[in-house]
Amino acid sequence: MPTISHKGRNMPESPIRKLAPFADLAKKKGHKVYHLNIGQPDIKTPEVAIEAVKNIDLSIIEYSPSAGYESYRKKLAHFYQRQNVNVNSEDIIVTTGGSEALLFALATITDPGDEIIIPEPFYANYHAFASSTSATVVPLVSTIETAFALPNIDEVEKLITPKTKAILICNPGNPTGYLYSETEIKQLAGLIKKHDLYLIADEVYREFLYDGDDEHFSVMNLDDVQQNVIMVDSVSKRYSMCGARIGCLVTKNKQVLATVMKFAQARLSPPTIEQIACEAAIDTPQSYFDEVISEYKSRRDTLITELNKIDGVIVTKPKGAFYCIAQLPIENSEDFAQWLLESYDLNGQTVMVAPAAGFYSTPGMGLNQVRIAYVLNKQDLITAVNILKEALLVYNKK
Amino acid sequence: MPTISHKGRNMPESPIRKLAPFADLAKKKGHKVYHLNIGQPDIKTPEVAIEAVKNIDLSIIEYSPSAGYESYRKKLAHFYQRQNVNVNSEDIIVTTGGSEALLFALATITDPGDEIIIPEPFYANYHAFASSTSATVVPLVSTIETAFALPNIDEVEKLITPKTKAILICNPGNPTGYLYSETEIKQLAGLIKKHDLYLIADEVYREFLYDGDDEHFSVMNLDDVQQNVIMVDSVSKRYSMCGARIGCLVTKNKQVLATVMKFAQARLSPPTIEQIACEAAIDTPQSYFDEVISEYKSRRDTLITELNKIDGVIVTKPKGAFYCIAQLPIENSEDFAQWLLESYDLNGQTVMVAPAAGFYSTPGMGLNQVRIAYVLNKQDLITAVNILKEALLVYNKK
Ligand SMILES: Cc1ncc(COP(=O)(O)O)c(C=O)c1O
Ligand SMILES: Cc1ncc(COP(=O)(O)O)c(C=O)c1O
Repeated sequence: MPTISHKGRNMPESPIRKLAPFADLAKKKGHKVYHLNIGQPDIKTPEVAIEAVKNIDLSIIEYSPSAGYESYRKKLAHFYQRQNVNVNSEDIIVTTGGSEALLFALATITDPGDEIIIPEPFYANYHAFASSTSATVVPLVSTIETAFALPNIDEVEKLITPKTKAILICNPGNPTGYLYSETEIKQLAGLIKKHDLYLIADEVYREFLYDGDDEHFSVMNLDDVQQNVIMVDSVSKRYSMCGARIGCLVTKNKQVLATVMKFAQARLSPPTIEQIACEAAIDTPQSYFDEVISEYKSRRDTLITELNKIDGVIVTKPKGAFYCIAQLPIENSEDFAQWLLESYDLNGQTVMVAPAAGFYSTPGMGLNQVRIAYVLNKQDLITAVNILKEALLVYNKK
Repeated sequence: MPTISHKGRNMPESPIRKLAPFADLAKKKGHKVYHLNIGQPDIKTPEVAIEAVKNIDLSIIEYSPSAGYESYRKKLAHFYQRQNVNVNSEDIIVTTGGSEALLFALATITDPGDEIIIPEPFYANYHAFASSTSATVVPLVSTIETAFALPNIDEVEKLITPKTKAILICNPGNPTGYLYSETEIKQLAGLIKKHDLYLIADEVYREFLYDGDDEHFSVMNLDDVQQNVIMVDSVSKRYSMCGARIGCLVTKNKQVLATVMKFAQARLSPPTIEQIACEAAIDTPQSYFDEVISEYKSRRDTLITELNKIDGVIVTKPKGAFYCIAQLPIENSEDFAQWLLESYDLNGQTVMVAPAAGFYSTPGMGLNQVRIAYVLNKQDLITAVNILKEALLVYNKK
């Protein structure tokens, strides 16, 4: 048989995927499974976007420009400007999801063996994007005790080697829900300036902040270091349009843009119809976001309150996005997650959680943690956490 | 300034892109530019597909499964089966365009430095996909004298080294229009079996054949070597849905599929709405294709007849796709193409052609050739070729 590439073989499997067959089995047994493991919001897509699709006026679904429609890029720039984020349309390349923006960013700045520093736990697919471009992830350990804040900047600096090309942060974070402060972002800026690195910020959850006085500080608003900054964004979560596959890469660095454009031209264009929907989505009324944020906020509050009722669970209140990391009174969350699906039910119901080890790159980290997404409604969250509580009692008596 | 990766810097720019500013200038001068350089068909998308978009019944545009909707994969498998192409739904991973399928295929089978043999001239983006996964393209020279047929199989075998991982063909070919015969495909199959390589076939133009007795022989119908075969396909040209960004990767090799799935999961999913449109498009009536093929056939015939009227032009009749390579009585087609846009017009009109050197990987090849796409209507083709003819007279008297 012909062979598979090393990078293909070494590419991590989705940590959740391994559990999927067990979830299927549970469902076959007739059990209801509460999915605390997924990041697909249940929030409705704005009507303006759906209407734009329904009213599409095209007789040929043509390629768009490789950088995306100019009209969309202009509206998107205005969208950022209204939020006082320093972005012009010529700084934007529209991508096929934030995923592709991440891939293009890494391919543009790393060669095989180059290193990217990423605070862990981190979005598991960063690993995959780094693998596909043969870059190496260097984890920067952050801990549940500090609510996953940025470690002391000296700790970050210690990880820098001649191979380091960038620091990649997710703000607010998946899976931690941590929101970096302006001070932290500026500390990172100092470091990348000193060592001439890139700072890549994945800001796909930028709108999802729940505490009144918190503000999102975008890397696009850093002074002085704009040549070193790349922002990644997406409509997936903002408008609950995950299936649109529209994101963007933003930078003031013309050389980076020109190189990203070469990758963008090779794949021809981002999806046409979905771009039209996204352009329309920019007119989504503020009331939509107000409702969505207040819904997530109360889900978060409910989830954290309920989790705190369980003996031995450690969890910190996430400030943004819609995930949290919970530490459970168990040894191995992968075994536990499988057991929940395979061997447990409370009146025919069980829960699926994402073992957190998949979000760490350091072996042995996060073994007793799970990631919980709060994309279910409050009643379901209460029920699901109660199942978890009862399950832990049974599990720990085994 | 932080640095750009070698692979980013070495990635070729689109050969056509360099000319785009000159086309813009010509248009600013008020000149009409006939675009013989592009691959975006002017054919209408089937109504069933557009209607499916208009009637979309979704309140949330969710991620689809990473491999694509099962319902779509099933219909697609039936589509192939009706054409007697040996494909089942579990052999298919839906991708974001044929482009992504090519990228996934190369990433799955090559590590940095591994070699892919490709008959040249070839679709310029193969180079880009190879660069982004750090693989090396080894060109297999085919010539206009033989209408770009597969060279003697011994010539192919001579290129195989311990680093060779695959032979990649485009059938029928962009930019050559060449259709590989069953015999040629079987010769290649013998070779990949002997050396345990992959045969990747880009069949995105599989429907576009113009000579009554020609039949497309898919690599999926090769006996014995199915573990070594990967097919790439796309809806872009089939349904004139380039902007849908829906393609697929097809293989019977489970290890390849499992690895491709890891890349597919990392990027989450192909576009949702466009997949729904593609599923509907499978019901496109045969009459649509009959009309499209007969339109392209008469365009091809017109184009070739007109080109043959120009002294010193060498062109062979393409059997498929909608491109041909024409050799012109000039030294450097890049200079000529630029001159056409910058300094020439016939009654306020000029043409844009794609210099063929960008489709070759061997330096110095194709310098006096251009690629001409016949995606314009017949009258425009006649006018455009006439401009080319008059322009050549002026150019060669300079
Ligand atoms: C942190 C983070 N970044 C990027 C993405 C990619 O999203 P998309 O490709 O849908 O824009 C996700 C999706 O869940 C995410 O959680
Ligand atoms: C030979 C060939 N392969 C692949 C593609 C990629 O097409 P898409 O990504 O739109 O499916 C094209 C597009 O022009 C092509 O000509």
